[in-house]
Amino acid sequence: MTDKFSFQVNATDGAARSGIISTPRGQVRTPAFMPVGTAATVKAMLPGSVRETGADILLGNTYHLMLRPTAERIAALGGLHRFMNWDGPILTDSGGFQVMSLASLRKLTEEGVTFASHIDGSKHMLSPERSMEIQRLLGSDIVMCFDECPALPADEAEVKRATDLSMRWAQRSRDAFGDRPGHALFGIMQGGVTPELRAASAEKLVEIGFDGYAVGGLAVGEGQEAMFGVLDYAPGLLPADKPRYLMGVGKPDDIVGAVQRGIDMMDCVLPSRSGRTGQAWTARGQVNLRNARHKDDPRPLEEGCTCPACRGYSRAYLHHVVKSDEIIASMLLTWHNLHYYQVLMQDLRDAIAAGALDAFVVQFHAQRAAGDIEPL
Amino acid sequence: MTDKFSFQVNATDGAARSGIISTPRGQVRTPAFMPVGTAATVKAMLPGSVRETGADILLGNTYHLMLRPTAERIAALGGLHRFMNWDGPILTDSGGFQVMSLASLRKLTEEGVTFASHIDGSKHMLSPERSMEIQRLLGSDIVMCFDECPALPADEAEVKRATDLSMRWAQRSRDAFGDRPGHALFGIMQGGVTPELRAASAEKLVEIGFDGYAVGGLAVGEGQEAMFGVLDYAPGLLPADKPRYLMGVGKPDDIVGAVQRGIDMMDCVLPSRSGRTGQAWTARGQVNLRNARHKDDPRPLEEGCTCPACRGYSRAYLHHVVKSDEIIASMLLTWHNLHYYQVLMQDLRDAIAAGALDAFVVQFHAQRAAGDIEPL
Repeated sequence: MTDKFSFQVNATDGAARSGIISTPRGQVRTPAFMPVGTAATVKAMLPGSVRETGADILLGNTYHLMLRPTAERIAALGGLHRFMNWDGPILTDSGGFQVMSLASLRKLTEEGVTFASHIDGSKHMLSPERSMEIQRLLGSDIVMCFDECPALPADEAEVKRATDLSMRWAQRSRDAFGDRPGHALFGIMQGGVTPELRAASAEKLVEIGFDGYAVGGLAVGEGQEAMFGVLDYAPGLLPADKPRYLMGVGKPDDIVGAVQRGIDMMDCVLPSRSGRTGQAWTARGQVNLRNARHKDDPRPLEEGCTCPACRGYSRAYLHHVVKSDEIIASMLLTWHNLHYYQVLMQDLRDAIAAGALDAFVVQFHAQRAAGDIEPL
Repeated sequence: MTDKFSFQVNATDGAARSGIISTPRGQVRTPAFMPVGTAATVKAMLPGSVRETGADILLGNTYHLMLRPTAERIAALGGLHRFMNWDGPILTDSGGFQVMSLASLRKLTEEGVTFASHIDGSKHMLSPERSMEIQRLLGSDIVMCFDECPALPADEAEVKRATDLSMRWAQRSRDAFGDRPGHALFGIMQGGVTPELRAASAEKLVEIGFDGYAVGGLAVGEGQEAMFGVLDYAPGLLPADKPRYLMGVGKPDDIVGAVQRGIDMMDCVLPSRSGRTGQAWTARGQVNLRNARHKDDPRPLEEGCTCPACRGYSRAYLHHVVKSDEIIASMLLTWHNLHYYQVLMQDLRDAIAAGALDAFVVQFHAQRAAGDIEPL
């Protein structure tokens, strides 16, 4: 254990890196996938089960938690870790992205954003200073700068305006965060798909100085090709000795491509959300358990998988409980999906350490291509 | 392990008994509470978690399983135990009660019941012979006779008609069940709240001869006083060396009163259903986690309880996830409730073995009475 936040790269393979983020609450093996615990729960999972999948760190959502049960209440109850019974590191987002996608009656000014709650219509405000305060009240280990993230496609002037504002907010976030040993503050690069804006954003963030850097403004509608286009150069604009975090990504092939391009951390609701709609992620691709082809199938969802869904049940059973809208369907498929994602991250870490990432990626895509001709 | 079904009474205290039911799939400590696994799942629980609460045996519902995924499909997949990943004993009901309460277009004849599925309107038939066949296909360890159970209050002539029919169906169930070593067939006493009808029903069932006997036709609207009125004499009409099963009961105080009157087995959806609506059962009574009084309460739901909900979380957290309609609320509260029920059963078994049941019952009611003045 350490009383400081630190990052160490242990191996590289092309642009890809594997390493360790150390925090007072434990280590995070990178590249890392962070399950999302929106409202102080990774949906349909107990925290001990999330840990069993191999997750080292969770993500919590400032927007959701500030509205319910409120950051002040969580602080009074001992902080988010204790509240949700997760003793490992937690990264919290700033609320900036979700307030723009979920809240109503939004009003954006230089100061911040005022908005009405999607739950009860109550009025609230987020600014760099308030976001820092909320994330401190939650007890977050890795705090994200408050930013404005425009949806893509957007015209370049709009992206520049939002990027410039986000950089001023990054400075205010840094000032408001202050000096909190053991806690990290990450800056968020913006700039859309414009290399010059990305470069200017990175330069500004590095000038301010952060413990880690996110590549923001992606996975917002631009498509994988455009995202990889940015990732071909954006990570290289950021300091090599700090973790690089790609927010809100993604599908397994997005993750593989991002890791190849030098990303160290990712998060996404996809594996848990898919699990609640009867979708499973496997080495042979995505499987829809709702499909009638599974109703008599005695095979496990994925041969060799050690998650409880695959060890204990047939595809026929999973089909039955999905069709019957049973809670156990969400529980088992979420568990499988999170397990699959963590196994993928371990495989990526191992491949990087062995200098064999290219071969792994070839095999990853070949398995998925072969999956198409399986009797799925 | 044994290859036969057997029952042994190890201790008595007044009319109450504690003992062991032995089956090839494991032992059941009595008095026993059986969680209900309606559609091949105890809702919101993994089977290993149900086992951890202390449950020795589950109940499966013939009506639900015959409609979806069908008994034939479960048989082809290796039986219900394998299908739902529960290797302990399973008792299945006959479908008789649920077809009358859930299906539409019912037509009752001497032969059996034709009906339309509540899921898709498809036409089906249940009879003593078909019920025995379905329960055999499922691989049930304890099979229940097919009966007709009228809701109470009902006039005595109607109760007598249903009881007489049920006794003829009991004989047909016995004949259709045949000789299946290691599997048990239980008869079901009917007779409403009329002692003469109860006595005649018991006499007929004992004449046919069963491995155990249910007290049927209760918990169908008659209230606790009337139920206890029947239980004051009905168990004594049944053989002392066979298990006595009270179907569909109940609340914790129903269970305590039934055990005092000589009941060995019970089942009810209450602890799991309550758990999905934010209700918890505790030694101090029923707690509604939806109530705003819990929102800042750092205390566990129940001091000293070793279930995951009480070990890991505050009342404030449980309130938050109930209010937020999170799946973890159903998972944690169902787990707590099933745990509470199984601790109650163990306490009852211990009290009977110690000849101290009366003292236990006094304490049980005193704790609940004191609960009313707690800041709940």
